[in-house]
Amino acid sequence: MNPKALQKLVYGMYIVGARKGEKLNGQVANTVFQIASEPPTVAVSINKGNLTHEYIKASRAFSAAVLCTATPLQYIGAFGFKSGRDVDKTKDVNYKIGQTGAPVFLDHANAYLEVEVGQDIDAGTHTVFIGRVVAAEVLTEDPCMTYDYYHQVKRGTTPRTAPGYIANEKGGEK
Amino acid sequence: MNPKALQKLVYGMYIVGARKGEKLNGQVANTVFQIASEPPTVAVSINKGNLTHEYIKASRAFSAAVLCTATPLQYIGAFGFKSGRDVDKTKDVNYKIGQTGAPVFLDHANAYLEVEVGQDIDAGTHTVFIGRVVAAEVLTEDPCMTYDYYHQVKRGTTPRTAPGYIANEKGGEK
Repeated sequence: MNPKALQKLVYGMYIVGARKGEKLNGQVANTVFQIASEPPTVAVSINKGNLTHEYIKASRAFSAAVLCTATPLQYIGAFGFKSGRDVDKTKDVNYKIGQTGAPVFLDHANAYLEVEVGQDIDAGTHTVFIGRVVAAEVLTEDPCMTYDYYHQVKRGTTPRTAPGYIANEKGGEK
Repeated sequence: MNPKALQKLVYGMYIVGARKGEKLNGQVANTVFQIASEPPTVAVSINKGNLTHEYIKASRAFSAAVLCTATPLQYIGAFGFKSGRDVDKTKDVNYKIGQTGAPVFLDHANAYLEVEVGQDIDAGTHTVFIGRVVAAEVLTEDPCMTYDYYHQVKRGTTPRTAPGYIANEKGGEK
């Protein structure tokens, strides 16, 4: 088995937002995908150790903002390589409170959606949250960032908590 | 809600293969994604009406071949817009029988993987099959086809049975 084959799977780059009471958080995710059309149903895979996991479990909702290719690495790094337990990720970024109550992070996004979670699927290290899309808007026509673009062009790396993390990846975790 | 926001989500293009007894089939899918890293766990969303759905249910395994940008529309059309109930999709294409017994379709693929299904998640019109990756190989370094590339550059369309189908999509179903 060659684990590099798994890196050929194609993903986007998203900021997933969630809340717990008055607390807001967001994180980078690459596994946001529509799994059924009628009604529109979306899934996201989130590491069980992440703060966003705790917030989605608590509020049964999340937002996902689709990142453009022009997104600065610094923006991704602030959401992807830091925990909301240590820093307030809503500081110095633009967001709005969506109709689910989740924060929708608007910077560098060409679209966003909000999901009310109906099912939690245990996938070992991660939970796959599945639910109905209750809001969705297009913001710009800028091209989407792919996970491959992030790695190849932006020279970004993968955190240990991502579904696609490989221990001996060249470059490794920052 | 603007359903076009859902079209901003990023996907690849895959040929998913499965068997039932001696019968083999394959179909196009865009929702193949890794949802956990340890052990490597992959999910696919398949329409309940598709023959491949019946075959995965029967054999508890599937293969996924990752398509390159150079894949001819004709190849995608043969797997995506025809049912294995009407035609033998293994005719005139290259495939091998993988270690799960599923056919692995090799033409125009830069990598493939095989999955032993552990969980079936009911998502209304679709089932999300989740399982452990038991085989994975890289075949070429050709770039992956994205779903967006298929639509924008190849001018491909979306079948009614796909998770991302929109009834009034410009161009519509072939």
